[in-house]
Amino acid sequence: MEYFSKDISRLVAEFSRLPGVGQKSAQRLAFHIINAPKEQAESLAEAITNARSNVHYCKICCTLTDQDICPICSSEERNHRQIMVVENTRDMSAYERIGKYNGVYHVLHGAISPMLGIGPDDIRLKELMARLQNDVDEVIIATNSSLEGETTATYITKLVKPLGIKVTRIASGVPVGGDIENIDEVTLLRALDGRITL
Amino acid sequence: MEYFSKDISRLVAEFSRLPGVGQKSAQRLAFHIINAPKEQAESLAEAITNARSNVHYCKICCTLTDQDICPICSSEERNHRQIMVVENTRDMSAYERIGKYNGVYHVLHGAISPMLGIGPDDIRLKELMARLQNDVDEVIIATNSSLEGETTATYITKLVKPLGIKVTRIASGVPVGGDIENIDEVTLLRALDGRITL
Repeated sequence: MEYFSKDISRLVAEFSRLPGVGQKSAQRLAFHIINAPKEQAESLAEAITNARSNVHYCKICCTLTDQDICPICSSEERNHRQIMVVENTRDMSAYERIGKYNGVYHVLHGAISPMLGIGPDDIRLKELMARLQNDVDEVIIATNSSLEGETTATYITKLVKPLGIKVTRIASGVPVGGDIENIDEVTLLRALDGRITL
Repeated sequence: MEYFSKDISRLVAEFSRLPGVGQKSAQRLAFHIINAPKEQAESLAEAITNARSNVHYCKICCTLTDQDICPICSSEERNHRQIMVVENTRDMSAYERIGKYNGVYHVLHGAISPMLGIGPDDIRLKELMARLQNDVDEVIIATNSSLEGETTATYITKLVKPLGIKVTRIASGVPVGGDIENIDEVTLLRALDGRITL
């Protein structure tokens, strides 16, 4: 009754279920949709349905794709002996944007978190281990620099090292453009430990 | 290519057309949809389509509704001789939430703004004037306290007063809980001018 139409109320409710969308934003989005050209509203609805039904995991690297095997895994120009392990597709796409990495990826879809009850079996680790049966030179662990990311990195290292495969971790340190005085102690310590000779 | 699936790219593009949704938020929303239960994604898509196609203007007060005449205009318990003029349905719903106003509304869907090229004919003013042919005791102007809202209020006053109908404007002043020292001069002056005897 508050919005005078059950369709508006329902749309507001649906929008406010999305992450980072509060009641006010949901209301603003709903009124935008109602006032937008019909094609735009339908196009958004269609995009939602299509993305949800067509997108699934790549059979090799587990990234989100609408093909059986994603373009990176099926590319002959990439180095398939170098695997970068990331937490999710967004992290993978962040590395792809740089355009400097020529290996392939493995997407875990999460990180080990005892606090949230997420164990090694809840992320795509088994799929990674299966891939290591083939010839692999290096596993680059690019999980986040958070407690969960570090736990996952340690866990993977323990599994992969005994196989005789080189395991590396992306560097942790002061971000470019970051002000030393505003950076936390752990990062500063990491930056010091990881210093390189010029 | 960047998101490895045209469906993901398209959904991100559609989300980023919404107001207040940047590239990053659009990406977060899109990945949420892809990982959400299928029913939730479909429910959102359906809500968008329904709201856009079923919602239109109330034939009397021009608010957004899915009925011919909105529940307020068709209610016999409301005072139909008192009309509050608001800029949009959200403002109307803000007043309805208080639950203290018993009159009816008129929704302009905008405000006069010479800067944006919005004239009196671009908002639902004609519909308001038509309603004033019936018996009306009071027109309460509750447009925003912005330049556009004030311009609209002045314009409506000039049109309605000659008809012998009482025209009022909602009070402008220090918001409840507002710190006097942080409030702008215009508001302070308004609060002083509008002071009431205790």
